[in-house]
Amino acid sequence: MLTFEEKVSIFNKLKEQSGSHSPSITSLFKEIDDLKIDVDACFLSNPYATELFFSFLKSELIETQKIFGVIEYYPAQNKSIAKSLSSAIKVPAKNIFIANGAIEGIQAILHRFVKDSIAVPIPTFSSYYEYVQNLGVKCYLYENSKENDYKLDLSLYSRFIRDNNISNCVIINPNNPDGNHLDRNDLIAFLKSHQDLDNIILDESFIHFTKGSNLEIESLDQEILNFQNLIVVKSLSKDFGIAGIRAGYLLMDEKKVSSLLSNGYLWNSSGLAEYFFKKYSDKSFRSLYEEVRLKYIDQTEKFYDQLKTLKGIHIIKSKSNFFLAEILNKKTSSEVFMELLFKHNIYVRDCSDKIGLNGEYIRIAARSKEENTKIFNALKNVL
Amino acid sequence: MLTFEEKVSIFNKLKEQSGSHSPSITSLFKEIDDLKIDVDACFLSNPYATELFFSFLKSELIETQKIFGVIEYYPAQNKSIAKSLSSAIKVPAKNIFIANGAIEGIQAILHRFVKDSIAVPIPTFSSYYEYVQNLGVKCYLYENSKENDYKLDLSLYSRFIRDNNISNCVIINPNNPDGNHLDRNDLIAFLKSHQDLDNIILDESFIHFTKGSNLEIESLDQEILNFQNLIVVKSLSKDFGIAGIRAGYLLMDEKKVSSLLSNGYLWNSSGLAEYFFKKYSDKSFRSLYEEVRLKYIDQTEKFYDQLKTLKGIHIIKSKSNFFLAEILNKKTSSEVFMELLFKHNIYVRDCSDKIGLNGEYIRIAARSKEENTKIFNALKNVL
Repeated sequence: MLTFEEKVSIFNKLKEQSGSHSPSITSLFKEIDDLKIDVDACFLSNPYATELFFSFLKSELIETQKIFGVIEYYPAQNKSIAKSLSSAIKVPAKNIFIANGAIEGIQAILHRFVKDSIAVPIPTFSSYYEYVQNLGVKCYLYENSKENDYKLDLSLYSRFIRDNNISNCVIINPNNPDGNHLDRNDLIAFLKSHQDLDNIILDESFIHFTKGSNLEIESLDQEILNFQNLIVVKSLSKDFGIAGIRAGYLLMDEKKVSSLLSNGYLWNSSGLAEYFFKKYSDKSFRSLYEEVRLKYIDQTEKFYDQLKTLKGIHIIKSKSNFFLAEILNKKTSSEVFMELLFKHNIYVRDCSDKIGLNGEYIRIAARSKEENTKIFNALKNVL
Repeated sequence: MLTFEEKVSIFNKLKEQSGSHSPSITSLFKEIDDLKIDVDACFLSNPYATELFFSFLKSELIETQKIFGVIEYYPAQNKSIAKSLSSAIKVPAKNIFIANGAIEGIQAILHRFVKDSIAVPIPTFSSYYEYVQNLGVKCYLYENSKENDYKLDLSLYSRFIRDNNISNCVIINPNNPDGNHLDRNDLIAFLKSHQDLDNIILDESFIHFTKGSNLEIESLDQEILNFQNLIVVKSLSKDFGIAGIRAGYLLMDEKKVSSLLSNGYLWNSSGLAEYFFKKYSDKSFRSLYEEVRLKYIDQTEKFYDQLKTLKGIHIIKSKSNFFLAEILNKKTSSEVFMELLFKHNIYVRDCSDKIGLNGEYIRIAARSKEENTKIFNALKNVL
């Protein structure tokens, strides 16, 4: 049996190997013999949606043995998957780029369309600045202010872009890791006043967790038809908890999609990703999904109300499915993280490697009702 | 029930949508109601290896329900999979780039490392010339001669590269679609005399189907340690019949691997691909695989002996798992293809869209012993 200190030291080694991301659960279990994880509150997914998708996967692919065909044969090509997704998201197929995980799409557009310079607000998902390295692109990091709980101030950001004569920019809404949400009208105004930029990359990977005023998904996806320089990024790992399938898509001007497909990305989806996209495009599946989406948002709101009552910690108001929390009780984020993991079997995200954060932060994912209670009790104990 | 002519017309429409590739089996079944395929002799895979892999998949992932974890959580990162593959293929991890199907790797190196010009012998796998389009790279197609059954003449190719001052080149060994095999010593001599080229891309996706003099796999993979400009491409869909998983890898100078990973390709493998690579790296699995590899090669050789006896067709001698066959009985390749598919339920590859072929050609994949007999009987009937 490893001691607490030994576990901490193994974890730190694994973290080092994972760069600016968390070590995968698999690698943790491989390296830390007696590890137990009751709640994975690092992984940002809706467990109810995972359950829903798995019930179909089980009855349609596994019990029928059809999964073997899905694994054996070539999956559909990019354009063909885009065609079936098109009717579900109400965007023309020619504007859809299917990606092997949103991160492949992010890489594709950064490498192909971003020249000269790009503005990236921090804290953020690290790939936005890591993937423009060594490409001759100047990356301007825009620091969100701690006083404003790291919420992006669009008018200051706008001025920052103008002052530095930057030709591309990134906006994540709601933002990871803080969950801050930008108003639809403010975003449209921003788009209108920045039509001269080469690309505005709007990452809506977490937008399904924001409850719109009419419960709808407040996506700006349709706006790609109005703003030629707008690129909307959508991960699906978060909505469905299917990171192992690698599924995401990007919406953009059709010329950009054609450019990407003219010399690549033919078979970038796996057979399982193709199956997932088929379900995701299916009306009756989507209405079932809508139920668990709203159920999860409700649970997440209740979780926030609960977390707010904790002392020694500041929870940032979030419109996503996670909470950025500043530790105020003199412990470091790493100490809180390690105690949660090795004493309470709760895996959260230590944000000490996130640039742009000023203080001791952890990020806590909302999970099922029962799991949220476990997270709350453990946090209470540690703090 | 559709008539023969109606089926032909639907097929032609599907083919048009698939570019320079065959329509997928799934799309065929979707569009042609009463389609029956007894033998898929278009898909170039070893059915015995598929069976072997599936037996493990079934007992290790499906029956244990572990497949749900594989789908839910983030897969390992590129470097981590490379590490486990390293010992199996005896190439340092730092020289391995794990790809979401070999085609992603081909795209990566063509887009990142190929500048100015590239020589591509034809007939070939179309991505080698399609993926350098619109990138400012001049692509020189080198036509293999029909008289030589399209076998690449390395000394003429060498001269072609010099005469045109070309800076990169492609060699596929054995070549697709003809199965011609180049001698190891000739290839080494070619590498020695072209160390000034920026990149020599050697695609060994079918090398597992070539029986070396001591039954070993005659790969030049170790040579990447001797020739800095050598890049070896390896698909695994062919060896294992797992095209739906998307698994391949590339071997190259470590600086190139670092360059690719410095700004991308972090999570480009799916959870199932990670599982596959783990099996592929496992000693006892590999020894079981070695048995079915040799069994399949033996069947394929016997299939060739059988095909040779057919009249009205010329079968090119192949060291891979498929045969390029010229129709000499006045029928077109498309006619033979359609009759095989819609009258005998055998799906082969009509090569009429392959540039560099001069005549009426179909490509026939070797399958299991029983399936080969079916293909043979159908061909005999059609010819």
